[in-house]
Amino acid sequence: MKQSHLFTKTQKENPAGEISINAQYLIRAGFVDKLSSGIYTFLPLGLRVVKKIQDIVRNEMDALGAQEILMPSLHPKENWETTGRWDVEEMYKIDGEPYGLGWTHEEIVTPLLKKFILSGKDLPKAVYQIQTKFRNEPRAKSGLLRGREFVMKDLYSFHENQDDLDDYYEQVKEAYFKVYNSLGLGEITYLTLASGGTFSKYSHEFQTITNAGEDIIYICPKCKLATNKEVFDGKCPQCGSTNLEEKKAIEVGNIFKLGTKYTAPFAFNGQNGSPLVMGCYGIGITRLLGTVVETMNDTKGMIWPQSIAPFAIHLIQIDGGDESVAPKGEELYDILQKEGFEVLYDNRGEKTVGEKLNDADLIGIPLRIIISKKTLAEDSVELKERKEEKSSLVKIKELVNQLKENAK
Amino acid sequence: MKQSHLFTKTQKENPAGEISINAQYLIRAGFVDKLSSGIYTFLPLGLRVVKKIQDIVRNEMDALGAQEILMPSLHPKENWETTGRWDVEEMYKIDGEPYGLGWTHEEIVTPLLKKFILSGKDLPKAVYQIQTKFRNEPRAKSGLLRGREFVMKDLYSFHENQDDLDDYYEQVKEAYFKVYNSLGLGEITYLTLASGGTFSKYSHEFQTITNAGEDIIYICPKCKLATNKEVFDGKCPQCGSTNLEEKKAIEVGNIFKLGTKYTAPFAFNGQNGSPLVMGCYGIGITRLLGTVVETMNDTKGMIWPQSIAPFAIHLIQIDGGDESVAPKGEELYDILQKEGFEVLYDNRGEKTVGEKLNDADLIGIPLRIIISKKTLAEDSVELKERKEEKSSLVKIKELVNQLKENAK
Repeated sequence: MKQSHLFTKTQKENPAGEISINAQYLIRAGFVDKLSSGIYTFLPLGLRVVKKIQDIVRNEMDALGAQEILMPSLHPKENWETTGRWDVEEMYKIDGEPYGLGWTHEEIVTPLLKKFILSGKDLPKAVYQIQTKFRNEPRAKSGLLRGREFVMKDLYSFHENQDDLDDYYEQVKEAYFKVYNSLGLGEITYLTLASGGTFSKYSHEFQTITNAGEDIIYICPKCKLATNKEVFDGKCPQCGSTNLEEKKAIEVGNIFKLGTKYTAPFAFNGQNGSPLVMGCYGIGITRLLGTVVETMNDTKGMIWPQSIAPFAIHLIQIDGGDESVAPKGEELYDILQKEGFEVLYDNRGEKTVGEKLNDADLIGIPLRIIISKKTLAEDSVELKERKEEKSSLVKIKELVNQLKENAK
Repeated sequence: MKQSHLFTKTQKENPAGEISINAQYLIRAGFVDKLSSGIYTFLPLGLRVVKKIQDIVRNEMDALGAQEILMPSLHPKENWETTGRWDVEEMYKIDGEPYGLGWTHEEIVTPLLKKFILSGKDLPKAVYQIQTKFRNEPRAKSGLLRGREFVMKDLYSFHENQDDLDDYYEQVKEAYFKVYNSLGLGEITYLTLASGGTFSKYSHEFQTITNAGEDIIYICPKCKLATNKEVFDGKCPQCGSTNLEEKKAIEVGNIFKLGTKYTAPFAFNGQNGSPLVMGCYGIGITRLLGTVVETMNDTKGMIWPQSIAPFAIHLIQIDGGDESVAPKGEELYDILQKEGFEVLYDNRGEKTVGEKLNDADLIGIPLRIIISKKTLAEDSVELKERKEEKSSLVKIKELVNQLKENAK
């Protein structure tokens, strides 16, 4: 995409009223726009990242054999009355109509699956969706980390017995770590014990260490296991060690053995007449996006991992008033696109060199390529990774091969 | 996908309370589930179709140079008060909170673009989104044709003057017909004059002829132009002919020259100090899906066009108790998938031949391939197009080449 065409612009100043790094950088770089507290528009650069995170999550869910569906946001009152949750504070309700807005979907997915699961042969089954959720959130102050409207992946599984749920639950754990690894968050994301509810002692959260986090966790370095402060009793529940690290962290996923909590009220029973056993598994897509920004940035801006960067390459044309540079830039832009690279091409004529380089640092595309009169004098371009200080000159005729080598 | 894995099942009986063909067939075939009046879940087969329609529309929007964004559904009251539309009946409001649910986005997109369009050099600009809309709809009775929650593409364009809007408007018209042509609706979809509002005599709708339609249009066969009953005065507004055909039709798109109706209240002004000129352009994605079902079906079920079929091929294994058929079916399924075909593979053991063929007709995938003991005796499979009566035997070793020929 040509930057001259992109309708968004960067801002030099931090937006008023935003205290989180993710909101500051995402707004300044034109990835999102704040409509109201906890409510954001995704602009072209931001939406590209959202879609890439969705694709990574979708691939892992498909690999689990889960089937993608799309459930509504308007939820009938009667579904929520069946489970006694109509009056929870999380739910926005429609004025004068018998609908609430979906902040989770157990009350919808359970009677839905009941229509189709008619015998033990149909089990186990798992379905998921990637969908906009709404949540009456009094403390919407952390940018994309805690919103009133956000994109989530929610997966639900149904099993004939606890053993089968336990097996599937372990598979989901692995799938979740594959997601965090793909995003470059694997090293700082911990499986974390959290409160379990009626049917198991603990549930599991996935917590990513960052000072922007609102949770406190205690990490056992030996077990690589964390415990949420809410259930922490001073020692690692696995090895008993008291030598733990206290960290602030953000919850980037949770998985929950629900048992029969929702299948019982809907009389969703198995062959033996007792309710099926159910699990639910959430990942906040837009929260993950905010978490990546919180954990991958410097004073100049964001630093996207290749896997979810809005573009792979930021090609910057610096002509210094020389008209011979632009055609070479256009040519290289076309070549790179034909070779399958996603390129943001800064062909803006009215910007200074400094403005262009500052924008590139702020936007944070992993690889910067400068084409200028100076580099062209060497038949070259200048390559620089966003996360590195040093740059190098590469001959234009060798560029595509080198980029392909690097991508391996 | 293996049909034994798919969690949905077909139903023999029409669902109670659904009078429209699209809802009846889509529910019976397991494409959608009705949660409440005008509120549907998209099941795996249905969601695949939704995504394909989205992709077709997205490609045409991108070709227009429009930039994709994703605006929120929770709309602040103050935005709608600015234009005096806070109290329109279409809008669901949140109980006790200053939000309405988006049924259109002029009140959001206008102040958004105002932030970024700072000079005449930034014009024209167009943005679009593909998003879930909510609409307080008293008459939600036509399946996907008129819902309370539905997926829509909405495009908005901003221009310095009327001429520029007029040019863009004509480009959008062409893009819309490309969409309808891709879906096989081009021949029965008419550009239709409808009421225009303050800034132009007419707006334009795109109306697809079907008895399920709730609109009445008058088609001039000579001009290939229709007029909506709401603005019809007995003759073709273009050629004056009174020899017109009256038809029932469903509105599958509308485009509107808004003039300064929304730019003025938000003081979104151009260089000369007067408000910019704006256009808006909508296509209901899920309504299009319903329209395709209404116009492409027979007494046995749906007949999907190749472009948006949930799968390109329905491979049906009929073993008649012979264990040698299944491995050959599996093998063919793998080969077809490796060759890049999207295949639904009916490998279900418990179904009779009749049940399988009835399901295939109901689901309506364009090409059916039967592999059975009888066809294998000829080293062949049986090919039949959903829309044709006759079938033919094709040698397995020639199958892939023939399919690729057909796909050209």
